[in-house]
Amino acid sequence: MEMSPSFVVGVDVGGTKVVAGLVDSDGKVLSRERTPMVVQQGSAGGLGSLKKVIASVLAKGDASKKIEAIGVCSPGPLNPKTGVVLNPPNLPCWRNFPLAEELAQLYRVRVKVDNDANAAGLAEALWGAGRGYCNVFYFTVGTGIGTGIVIDGRIYHGRTGAAGEGGHLSIDHNGPKCGCGKRGCIEALASGPAIARRAREKLTPKSAMLELAGGNVDAVTSEIVGQAHAAGDAIAREVLAETIADLSFWLGNVIDLLEPDVMIVGGGVAAILEPWFAEIRDRLPGCSINPRCGEIPLLMAQYGEDAGIAGGAALCFQD
Amino acid sequence: MEMSPSFVVGVDVGGTKVVAGLVDSDGKVLSRERTPMVVQQGSAGGLGSLKKVIASVLAKGDASKKIEAIGVCSPGPLNPKTGVVLNPPNLPCWRNFPLAEELAQLYRVRVKVDNDANAAGLAEALWGAGRGYCNVFYFTVGTGIGTGIVIDGRIYHGRTGAAGEGGHLSIDHNGPKCGCGKRGCIEALASGPAIARRAREKLTPKSAMLELAGGNVDAVTSEIVGQAHAAGDAIAREVLAETIADLSFWLGNVIDLLEPDVMIVGGGVAAILEPWFAEIRDRLPGCSINPRCGEIPLLMAQYGEDAGIAGGAALCFQD
Repeated sequence: MEMSPSFVVGVDVGGTKVVAGLVDSDGKVLSRERTPMVVQQGSAGGLGSLKKVIASVLAKGDASKKIEAIGVCSPGPLNPKTGVVLNPPNLPCWRNFPLAEELAQLYRVRVKVDNDANAAGLAEALWGAGRGYCNVFYFTVGTGIGTGIVIDGRIYHGRTGAAGEGGHLSIDHNGPKCGCGKRGCIEALASGPAIARRAREKLTPKSAMLELAGGNVDAVTSEIVGQAHAAGDAIAREVLAETIADLSFWLGNVIDLLEPDVMIVGGGVAAILEPWFAEIRDRLPGCSINPRCGEIPLLMAQYGEDAGIAGGAALCFQD
Repeated sequence: MEMSPSFVVGVDVGGTKVVAGLVDSDGKVLSRERTPMVVQQGSAGGLGSLKKVIASVLAKGDASKKIEAIGVCSPGPLNPKTGVVLNPPNLPCWRNFPLAEELAQLYRVRVKVDNDANAAGLAEALWGAGRGYCNVFYFTVGTGIGTGIVIDGRIYHGRTGAAGEGGHLSIDHNGPKCGCGKRGCIEALASGPAIARRAREKLTPKSAMLELAGGNVDAVTSEIVGQAHAAGDAIAREVLAETIADLSFWLGNVIDLLEPDVMIVGGGVAAILEPWFAEIRDRLPGCSINPRCGEIPLLMAQYGEDAGIAGGAALCFQD
């Protein structure tokens, strides 16, 4: 077993920006830097964005703190064993790009690469809401739904690193079509855009949501649904109740297959879902055959905006 | 790590019978005994059935072969860590019965207990069709659908031992009601009784299946559907095609979440499904977002009738 590093750089690559920060071995995020992600100038352009943000982190860091590893989370698909980024739809700069190897040569440290939901789930398991639990099911609800399965402090990768795509676990084979081509994926039913779609379909001319969207139906977002619900809007409540019913059914399936020790939700839409946790708990016994499913905690992720930085860093601390 | 035993007794407890056999460390089933399972005379009656069948195995065994452990597979729910059988619906004799402890005191050997699909999956992973694969997804199709997840040669148990209930992973939250109370569980769509139900709903007066059932609609079974299909019956083909579509969709979900290295099917209905493996492979790319899902082998279980004995035995060889 390798010695655990004391300080690492966690890097979070997105389609439009890269953020990075210094993270210690307790999972504390000590700094945050960001730069635009250059995706239109080939692989060197993309790598350049990472070099730039890492340079900022190093420049602002305490010189006494030796960086012992770099962990990067990135949209998939990618190979977490080799650190090769395959062909993420929103990272056209990288096609079969050996990201871990390139960074390792540049910085002469150990480099780990994994997909964003896996990495964020690992950070929660090691240092966040999942600390102390053996089997952690993490899901992040935002523009999509990503999931990460962490077993005994290690990401469960499956055959090629493509496991943990629970957002495409379908609960309705006749349901609405998902961006992936399948029908009834929970991503197509409960992601931010799916919540907004449900709301748009129910809007009436005098709806509070329409007002919040400046009268523009297309400007209704999941945030607006959350705001309207908080203000007592009945349609927003209906939209969220339907979404929660689907999420509960999906979680029941996850429990029947995986019976995790804890379920953790992160992502931009998590705050909108949080007021419904009690409702999910009430629904679960009807959604799972597990007589003790109600004992499994459903918790908010602890790393909000820092999920990517902490996730990248966590990869360096995986046994 | 304990020394691997050389010979163990594998015991398979069912609602009507108990079978048991001697199994060596290569998973070879060397003998088979059976006796009725007594479920109406309290816990001692049930235990008596096990003692009887184990006595038969020992009496017929070679005296030079020392038995080093006993492994029992049983209908769940049960606690695989403690070997306590909780409250299986079809084993009314045992309620919170410490089966492992009772047998260990009687025979003075190590005793392991687990549920039948987990145990059969482990036997396939260690010695059967899953040998050499790291992540094994096993499913057994019979009167129900049971599943077992084996990771690195160990059963994945989840929080309380209730993981791996993939038969109740639903693909249709509005679908037909399952015996468990949920809707659209694959067990309600593709088990033997579900196949028979599909057939009964499609029967015409001159159907070959009705003839095979002696004119009695209620006597149509999945075996008859399989026979009729083999003989070229169009309705039987339609029934199985629909079943296979649902099974493929379900397997696509399993792949998206778990990306196993291999999928293995056992149980009484597996032989009826086997002619459709190519069809399942053709369908999988539309049922999973995994671009390499087609590379995951779908294999027939190697332990047919011996699944329970081998499964029980395999528990003794788990690291």
